[in-house]
Order: sequence, then structure tokens, then C-alpha cells
Amino acid sequence: MQAGHAIGVDLGGTKILAGVVARDGSIVRRHERPTPQDSQEHVLAELEAAVAELLDDSVGAVGFGVPSPIDQARGVVVRCVNVPLEDAPLRDHMRERFEIPVGLDNDANAAAIGEWRAGVGQGVDDLLMLTLGTGVGGGVVSGGKPFRGRNGAGAELGHVVVVHGGRPCQGACTGHGHLEAYASGSAATAAARETFGPSADAHRLVRLANEGDAKAKELLEEVGGYLGSGIGSFVNVFGPQLVVLGGGFGVAAYDYLRGPAEEVARREALEPMRSAMQLAKAELGTAAGLIGAAFVGFETVDAAEST
Amino acid sequence: MQAGHAIGVDLGGTKILAGVVARDGSIVRRHERPTPQDSQEHVLAELEAAVAELLDDSVGAVGFGVPSPIDQARGVVVRCVNVPLEDAPLRDHMRERFEIPVGLDNDANAAAIGEWRAGVGQGVDDLLMLTLGTGVGGGVVSGGKPFRGRNGAGAELGHVVVVHGGRPCQGACTGHGHLEAYASGSAATAAARETFGPSADAHRLVRLANEGDAKAKELLEEVGGYLGSGIGSFVNVFGPQLVVLGGGFGVAAYDYLRGPAEEVARREALEPMRSAMQLAKAELGTAAGLIGAAFVGFETVDAAEST
Repeated sequence: MQAGHAIGVDLGGTKILAGVVARDGSIVRRHERPTPQDSQEHVLAELEAAVAELLDDSVGAVGFGVPSPIDQARGVVVRCVNVPLEDAPLRDHMRERFEIPVGLDNDANAAAIGEWRAGVGQGVDDLLMLTLGTGVGGGVVSGGKPFRGRNGAGAELGHVVVVHGGRPCQGACTGHGHLEAYASGSAATAAARETFGPSADAHRLVRLANEGDAKAKELLEEVGGYLGSGIGSFVNVFGPQLVVLGGGFGVAAYDYLRGPAEEVARREALEPMRSAMQLAKAELGTAAGLIGAAFVGFETVDAAEST
Repeated sequence: MQAGHAIGVDLGGTKILAGVVARDGSIVRRHERPTPQDSQEHVLAELEAAVAELLDDSVGAVGFGVPSPIDQARGVVVRCVNVPLEDAPLRDHMRERFEIPVGLDNDANAAAIGEWRAGVGQGVDDLLMLTLGTGVGGGVVSGGKPFRGRNGAGAELGHVVVVHGGRPCQGACTGHGHLEAYASGSAATAAARETFGPSADAHRLVRLANEGDAKAKELLEEVGGYLGSGIGSFVNVFGPQLVVLGGGFGVAAYDYLRGPAEEVARREALEPMRSAMQLAKAELGTAAGLIGAAFVGFETVDAAEST
């Protein structure tokens, strides 16, 4: 029997977003609670509580999207960014707690799967999504399947080099010139502060651009150009039909980023990939992650049934 | 019945290298003839002749590695670099001519498959090979399967951006700052000429370095650094355990490229991918392509038998 519904849980730095999701991607019921900042034990307890709040007989699986590489073979969350969760055997833990199939994925993968199953990417077999927020996350669907790389750790598309020896990356990353250092909301905030003073940020930059400020537009378009170099690279590697821009900053600044990003990406891309490529704005907003996580849950059930 | 042998054909700019290959990757018999430069008809005739020369009852499949994106769905060679072969339905053509299963792949993919099946990458489930020659070719094995991207066109790893807005690319590519413009043999030749005059080239640069010339070493190490940015990006995307450097220039200059490439790649790579990554020199030399092409042939037979 196919599970009618799955619970999707999107673990974010400030909120846990959870929902009961149907096979058509619609959200039947949702629930939200704050993400604890103090301990792993507390995070696990709140994740459990979010699931328990929504669980009923219609639910056949649970999926989690977490801001971390995933060790798929062991079902382990390697190390979260901004959430105290490290080397956590989340899959077994939740399986035992709820006696239900459990799937895990990186949060950016989950968002890409959400847009693929229920958003702007429906019916597209090859798509790539970039979530521009604090960092730059990436998710890939290739040949009608989520692409997860070795051990399912996921494609860290925000950490490709677009400027050899360029700007240092954020946080624990020792890299230089990564896409994330040029095209994230944080990068836009840094650019905004340089021009508009220490109280400016990426949101203000977009607001100023909306009000017609030429300098703000120029800064966003510069970000779009760097984004285009990254997109061009990904198009040459994966050949997606659709590149989805999402994340808080990506959606807010889409109208300014899109033109220069597309122009540069088309210059960098080879045929036949260049002609096949289209850009689009994410449609599901903050729900993409939980919807995608629910489909990671469905995927677990379907894989078990087909073997 | 499993095909005991397959013929692998590697179509290069100057030579057609063909061989009868056993399942263990050993070459039973080989054959070589020049690549015609004049017409598609002539190229097809010589490819046929190379196969006919080697075909016997032990051969259950033929595979071709060609310097072109491949439309796998239609079995068509899209457009070769340096060989007059474009929009060519090579798979059907050869199937009809020899009544035998036929596989096609990009030449860099074929080389990667060769090293994976019979070279330095034996037993490794996730590897990536860069062939540094006139251009930079790339092939990926992911989760124990060749990764071919959308429609099997292949991952064009030489055409990722490592320097946003950097050096223009070669030939038909309109890109700027691609890995190929910094880490190919042609790029090394350009650097050699700038320093050592118009008669210098990549081979002379390696010879000078071997003789102890400090400037030649420095130029090669600079190439290695750029290569490291590309490798770091690929490691973050695919998470390979092994990165194989091959191609005429890649093998000749390996001792100079490796150190700086590894240093930069480790700086750019995230955990857990960083710790898993190793670099190695290709082992099969010019035979990698034909051996890999033969395995593309075996793959066609095996796929047909498993359905």
C-alpha cells in the first residue's frame, strides 16, 4: 500500500517547519516551533514533538531536511550549520521512536525536491535549484532522480570556486572565491554596508532598488553576474533544463539578479546545454523544504516497496 | 551469454585507436589508423574499417569514444572537435553495419571509465578524471556508475568557471575564465611562449622543469593552482574518493601540478569530501580511451540482458 501522506520536517536555524503532505504536494496540515539553540538533546526532542504533533493513521513516512551533509549509508546528520546537531543518527532515532520509514536529506536538496514535485519544476526531469540566503545551497535532480553524490552527502553548489584565490568563505569553510562569498544574501549585505553604511543589509538593498536607487540596482546586478558564472558551470556539468532561484534573498532580489545571471550563464554554457537551459523563480517560498522533505519520506517507502 | 570481448574505438584528432578488450580490461589485439580530415563519410568509413579489422566471434559489442557531446537517447554524435563528424547517427549506423550492440560516449568519459575499470581507479565507486591535453576533458563515475548528465551529454568539467570574467576560452566556446583556459596543455603552451619565446610549448616547459629551470617550474605550479580550484569545486559537487589526472600534458607535468593542485583543492573542499579525496596519475596512457570505450560496449550488452 502506498502511504497516502508523509510528514515533512524542515529544520532551520530559527524554526522547525513541519507539515503533513499529500502525494500531489499539497499541505494538509502544518505545524511550526522554534529551533532550540542550546543542545543536541533538546533539538532532537523538539523534532520529535513536531512529528508527534502531526502524526496520524494517514501518515506512512517521515522525511527530514537538515542544514548539513548527510551520511546516507548510516542515516546520520554529519554537522549542522547554526543548529547544535552533529554526528546524529537521526534516521534510526526517529524510526525507533515512531516505528515508521524515515528519510533524511540536506535542506537545499529538500527544497529542490519540493520545487520539482510541487513547484515551478513539476514535470521537469533535470533541474537544479540554488537557494540564496545566509549561504548558497544547491540541489540537483538529474534524469528524474535526486542527485546526492557520494554517500548522499549532496552537491555543495555554493562551494564551487568562481574566483580563483578570491574572497574568503564564511564560517568553517577555508575556501576562497566560492560562489557563496559572492552570491549569498550575506555577500549582498556586505556589499550594501560598504556603500550604504553599517545599518544596511541585503533586504534594504532590494528595497532601495525597488525604489529606483541606481547604485543598489548596480550592486545586485553585480551579484547576478557572479551567480551567472556559477550557473554556467553547473549547466555545463549537469545540463539542467531548469535552474530555479530560491531562498529568501534569491526570491526577493530575483528581478535584479535574473538578467545578468542569465546573460553570463548563457555566455559560459556550451551547446546543447545552453539552448536547453531556462531560469525561473522558486514558487513555494518557505514551504519548499518541508514539502521536499515529505517527498524524501515517500521516496523511502517507494524504494522499500520496489525491492 | 556475456560477451567475452568488446571492441573499443577511440576517435582522436589524428588517430583512430582500436582494440579488442577482455572483461578484465586487458587488450587482446589492437589496431591503429589515421583519422581522415576531409569528410564525415571518410571518417565513418575508417571507423568501420577499424572495427572490421578486429571483429571475430569472440566480440559481443563495440563501443566508441568520440570528442563530442553525445545525444544518448538517439545515439548521435552532436559535433566533434577537430574531426569532421557532426549530427552523426553513429550508433544505428554501426549496429546496422555489424549487427552487434553498439555504445557511444564522450572521449573523456571513456578515458575515465578506462581508468576506473582497468587503471588506477579499479575498485573505486566514485572517481573523477580530468584529461589535460589540447583542452580539458572530464569524466565522472558516481556511485559505481558513469555519470553522463542530461541526455548523456556528459559533464563538461573543462568548462566550469574558475575565474569570473577571466581569460576567453578556445574555439567555439564563448566562455570566460574556464578551467580549460588555465589548466590545459594549450594554456601551458601560451604561458611558455610568453616567457620562453614563440617556439616554446607545454612539452618544452615540462622538459625545462625536469632540467631544473625555476621559472618553468613556477609556471607549471601556477597551472596546478588553477587546477586545484577546479578540483576543489568538483570535490564539493561529486565527492569523489579519487581524482585522476590524465591526458598528455596532465601525465607529463603531473609531478609539478600535483602539489599545488592538491594544496588548493584541499583548501577549497568541505568535509567530509575533503578527507575522502585523493589524487592520482592516470596509468593507462593513450589506451585509457579505447579500453573505456570497450566497457561502454560491455555496458550496452549488460543493460540489454538485465531488462
